[in-house]
Amino acid sequence: MASILITGASRGFGLALVRELSSRPAAQVSKVFAAARGDSPALKEVAAASSGRVSVVRLDVTDEPSIKSAAAEVEAQLGGKGLDVLINNAGVCQYAGDGVKSMDNLEESLAINVFGVHRVTQAFLPLLQRGSLKKVANITTSLGSITLAAAAHYLPAPAYKISKATLNALTVQYALDYEKEGFAFVAIAPGWLKTDLGGGDMADLTPEQGAKASLDILFRPNAEINGQFPKVLIPGWEKAKGPNVYDGTNVPW
Amino acid sequence: MASILITGASRGFGLALVRELSSRPAAQVSKVFAAARGDSPALKEVAAASSGRVSVVRLDVTDEPSIKSAAAEVEAQLGGKGLDVLINNAGVCQYAGDGVKSMDNLEESLAINVFGVHRVTQAFLPLLQRGSLKKVANITTSLGSITLAAAAHYLPAPAYKISKATLNALTVQYALDYEKEGFAFVAIAPGWLKTDLGGGDMADLTPEQGAKASLDILFRPNAEINGQFPKVLIPGWEKAKGPNVYDGTNVPW
Repeated sequence: MASILITGASRGFGLALVRELSSRPAAQVSKVFAAARGDSPALKEVAAASSGRVSVVRLDVTDEPSIKSAAAEVEAQLGGKGLDVLINNAGVCQYAGDGVKSMDNLEESLAINVFGVHRVTQAFLPLLQRGSLKKVANITTSLGSITLAAAAHYLPAPAYKISKATLNALTVQYALDYEKEGFAFVAIAPGWLKTDLGGGDMADLTPEQGAKASLDILFRPNAEINGQFPKVLIPGWEKAKGPNVYDGTNVPW
Repeated sequence: MASILITGASRGFGLALVRELSSRPAAQVSKVFAAARGDSPALKEVAAASSGRVSVVRLDVTDEPSIKSAAAEVEAQLGGKGLDVLINNAGVCQYAGDGVKSMDNLEESLAINVFGVHRVTQAFLPLLQRGSLKKVANITTSLGSITLAAAAHYLPAPAYKISKATLNALTVQYALDYEKEGFAFVAIAPGWLKTDLGGGDMADLTPEQGAKASLDILFRPNAEINGQFPKVLIPGWEKAKGPNVYDGTNVPW
């Protein structure tokens, strides 16, 4: 009977999460709040076919009034109940073709990928504290691993990598502050996905594979995942095909 | 015959670096550019006693025109020579008494501790490429270690910790981009120092101890320190006295 809010739900991984959750039994997922900045015909279609289980909520993670009004709308729809799960998925991957010296988008990457997550989490925290599952997933990437940065140097996206390292650090601060209340704050790396952000068909996994495997992580006991940086576990990908392994282990910070 | 620029040189650790460097033989340190946002009588005194070896440069790391005009001034003073060493020391430590949920200073911490470093580095990079030592030290802290975050949870400074984790990630991006040119970009943790930022007399080390030991790291061969996150080595502190160890090892990210 979980209620779940997902940001960045208009397409890609966020939309795949909404689809996957709305296909599960109502006894498991009672309500999906699909938060998106703009209109999405694909998302509207999923909502229309959901018999009211999926609500589309307008939310721009860079705009404080928009976050507050989304939180008020979700609170009203929950009718006194808490929100069980928050998935901070909205994010961008920005490039700097000439490397870090030409990186002029770090502020923007952080505004969306970090400050956005922080403000949304702050706004929904009172509702999450009244919820029964107390789970927050921040969607990150193994490209955000500082330890593994050399192996990812071929990809000229320094602002993306730095912003996700920052998101990981933020996740751990939340995890430490709220573990005594039974929360899990977890930085999930869903893999290299065939989405617009991921770069399309060259990628390893379908958004559906990433969504299912990420939810497998998120629904593990909170104490097991709080403050962790797990990769997804994808059958057949426990050993590398190409550069990546999806074996369910934690990525080093 | 090294020329060295230090940001945040008006007091604390930055001033201690200026003092230490200006006390060394001119054959080792030919010129110290002591960059500071505002006036500092203590820094003026050091400059006045330096027979012209220390130049005070006005530089506010959050203000792009100020950075550009400082770079132009330094270039003019160098008279065609390159800058050998840049020490990005300017920074703030901001607190959030009620933990991460009340953290409203993450943007400001990042603006000074990260975007400031990035912009200063971008502006001085052409001069550093003409220099002979090619060393950039970004002053960080072991509190910026995500791996060790649980041990540092007692200190309610989430924005400081997160901003320094971000600075570490930025340092590694620069390190990877410029190692082929022979640069060292190193994130140095100078220890818990008796400065205003460090919290005064409760701290472990004098600014002078931190300055000397940080310069010991910085003047090691570039290939040994590039992309690393070393702690200082302080005789007598190789094993913990209180919570901290200063044994010269790398801090885990």
